[in-house]
Amino acid sequence: MTVAAPQNDQLELNMEKSEDIAGLSPELMASVNEALEDGKTDLAKLLVDTLHYADLADLLEGLRHDHREGLVDALRNEFDPNILAELDDNVRERVIDQLGLRHIAVAVAELETDDAVEVVEELEAEEQKEVLEALPIGERTLIEEGLSYPEDSAGRLMQRAVAAVPSHWTVGQAIDYMRDDDDLPRDFFDLFLVDPRHRPVGSVALSRVVKTQRHVALSAIMNSEMKIIPVAMDQEDAAFLFRQRDLISAPVIDDSGRLVGVITVDDIVDVIHEEHEEDIMRLAGVGEEDDLYAAVIDTTKSRFTWLLIHLFAAILAAFVISFFAETIEQLVALAILMPIVATMGGTASVQTLTVAVRAIAMKELTPANAVRTIGKEIVVGILNGFIFAVLIGVVAWLWFDNPALGGVIGLAIILNLVVAGMAGSMLPVFLQKYGFDPAVASSAFLTSITDVVGFYVFLGLASLLLL
Amino acid sequence: MTVAAPQNDQLELNMEKSEDIAGLSPELMASVNEALEDGKTDLAKLLVDTLHYADLADLLEGLRHDHREGLVDALRNEFDPNILAELDDNVRERVIDQLGLRHIAVAVAELETDDAVEVVEELEAEEQKEVLEALPIGERTLIEEGLSYPEDSAGRLMQRAVAAVPSHWTVGQAIDYMRDDDDLPRDFFDLFLVDPRHRPVGSVALSRVVKTQRHVALSAIMNSEMKIIPVAMDQEDAAFLFRQRDLISAPVIDDSGRLVGVITVDDIVDVIHEEHEEDIMRLAGVGEEDDLYAAVIDTTKSRFTWLLIHLFAAILAAFVISFFAETIEQLVALAILMPIVATMGGTASVQTLTVAVRAIAMKELTPANAVRTIGKEIVVGILNGFIFAVLIGVVAWLWFDNPALGGVIGLAIILNLVVAGMAGSMLPVFLQKYGFDPAVASSAFLTSITDVVGFYVFLGLASLLLL
Repeated sequence: MTVAAPQNDQLELNMEKSEDIAGLSPELMASVNEALEDGKTDLAKLLVDTLHYADLADLLEGLRHDHREGLVDALRNEFDPNILAELDDNVRERVIDQLGLRHIAVAVAELETDDAVEVVEELEAEEQKEVLEALPIGERTLIEEGLSYPEDSAGRLMQRAVAAVPSHWTVGQAIDYMRDDDDLPRDFFDLFLVDPRHRPVGSVALSRVVKTQRHVALSAIMNSEMKIIPVAMDQEDAAFLFRQRDLISAPVIDDSGRLVGVITVDDIVDVIHEEHEEDIMRLAGVGEEDDLYAAVIDTTKSRFTWLLIHLFAAILAAFVISFFAETIEQLVALAILMPIVATMGGTASVQTLTVAVRAIAMKELTPANAVRTIGKEIVVGILNGFIFAVLIGVVAWLWFDNPALGGVIGLAIILNLVVAGMAGSMLPVFLQKYGFDPAVASSAFLTSITDVVGFYVFLGLASLLLL
Repeated sequence: MTVAAPQNDQLELNMEKSEDIAGLSPELMASVNEALEDGKTDLAKLLVDTLHYADLADLLEGLRHDHREGLVDALRNEFDPNILAELDDNVRERVIDQLGLRHIAVAVAELETDDAVEVVEELEAEEQKEVLEALPIGERTLIEEGLSYPEDSAGRLMQRAVAAVPSHWTVGQAIDYMRDDDDLPRDFFDLFLVDPRHRPVGSVALSRVVKTQRHVALSAIMNSEMKIIPVAMDQEDAAFLFRQRDLISAPVIDDSGRLVGVITVDDIVDVIHEEHEEDIMRLAGVGEEDDLYAAVIDTTKSRFTWLLIHLFAAILAAFVISFFAETIEQLVALAILMPIVATMGGTASVQTLTVAVRAIAMKELTPANAVRTIGKEIVVGILNGFIFAVLIGVVAWLWFDNPALGGVIGLAIILNLVVAGMAGSMLPVFLQKYGFDPAVASSAFLTSITDVVGFYVFLGLASLLLL
């Protein structure tokens, strides 16, 4: 029972501070920051000595630029290569520059193939070449093969070491083999059965292996519904498959059907995060590279593009307003109420857009039910349109003591909310159908549409009915 | 090699149609729809006969209301309980109403505890009672215990069946036990070692178990860095831990430190999806319940609340404009250019907000680096502010042949983009600090701030400098 003691300490620690769920506490972060601020690099190094590499990566990400450089220099000789795979792209680039390519080549050689490919794929072409040339030939071939698959494909994601055995073996044979073989992956969850041409014919979960008597044939307990992933499959589709079937690992095959690797759920968890991040960033008009750790200049550039697109949309709206300059001069209340028309249309269209983009990502919104979905959004637009037409109409009437003005803005609101629902659901379906990302630039298009329609209807009706 | 044949067919099928990645092809969906449209319920039933329950759940979600009722009625007698756990909340509610509570009680009894809790927790209090009373006492106690934990806690997420063995056992003893015991979970990935008081003291991955000789003590190969999850831990924190440490399963303990369950990564994948969905929905001002399958009336209600909040923000902006009614009457170009000021400020603030909300969710943005982050956003605001001030200033100058007007709108843009960066990064940090969700209603607040500041500065400067 001597082993129990340290575990229980650990346990109490976990329960006491709920913030401290992954080892990197705000207190430790503050102490390291203070040590580096005071130039006590040795103290900082001592403080991070027992950290898990994932936590150390988080700590490095959170440090100020010069502090990070100091700590990386201090850790240079015992820098855990796994930290590289965990780092944010922006921070990794800087750390790699600092450590130097020779150091990186040594580190890459120690990583598993999937992590190694992740680190190498972000390097410049020249740097890639230099790092690859410094690697042992076996490693190098595997990483080059990994890089030869399309970006974001299953081939980039897979690990090359696979636990595979002939499909005619028994449980006992498999266990004896696993006890003796050193080339097995460090962790694995399914045993894949292969035919003589190394094509996967079934899988057996390890929990099934250990529950079964030695003499039983593996083929008798294998999963007959095993899902096989072609090496070129998009990582997003692979992630969908894992989630749909609660998979823990899946075999990856090349064009000839041979088993070439395995994808495990921990990589899929990262993919799910990435894809979500892409969606959320694109909906807001932010580049995917834009995060806390991006350099000011990169962030400025990434935001610039989207602001420019929105600017064109806004100028179009301004152009529509300019048709009605005389109307506004005669009834300035129109200028005062314009933002209300624009805000309601813009908000409603972004609401619809978000629901539609999510549904497309979850493969719930397809051409088969698109018409029904768009119809529903129009009905919702009509219902909320009427409610807000009354609300805003009454506000405008009382504010400017002008019932006709209330009627005009009410009509504009109804029409704008219907257009918002229609455009907000149709645009992403349309973009998806023609192979574009349904989230990209959609919000700029939509607010442009609702601004133009809203202003045109509101000011147009006003010039017809109120003057 | 006879087993190989069906697998290879399956394989070719997978490779031929990449859309068909999870068994539910658009063609099948269309055929089922057609059969139900023509009233051929038996044909529809036959078509879905071999579908995996996860795919059948997707299919039911995608059907029109009346079609779904027809198919559920046809499947009533062989309705797989696992479908219930996979269904979207909105659709599940309707299917449960249709099948009736007695049927649901039978189904719940067949589910694993975590799935059963998921189905039961969504029922009304009365319905819950009725279903629970119809269950065998053992099942009932486990589910009631599950429901006693806070919503979104580890306790709700865990499965009660655990593979646990005394910590003094050898590999051989563990394997013999697993071969004989029937109470083990269907699938498991780690073997937990417990002390005599049933407190977890370590874990051994199954791949480690099968790689090791029978005589070796489990304590000699156990993972000493095992992460333990208290039953009350928030599911979001548990998900963070899984991702950070690439965990596949983790032991859950009660207040006295006893092992009471296990959380597996497939449940965590669902949590990650949920949490992302929450973020993206809240940023857009859409209720979490709002999806493709929500009834029109529920969707209308959920959107209404957020539209109302945005309406208040817009009325505030209109109020600011009303101060400057005379100025606009004299220079109607101001009314024409107003949407540009509002759009630029709103877009920039939502960009910053999104990056900040993501960073908080990833535990990257903390009080320790908040000041630095806000500072960076201000600098980005200044840089893009100057660029767009020049761009928009020149447009306004040329359009209205009025250089001073260009200068005024330029100044308003700079100030508005700086305010957008500052407010967009400070607001979520502030909300998080005081225990609110950083995404909720933030975009309404922010566009309100940038609208008010933008209009006030633009129209105020215009009234001072241009008239």
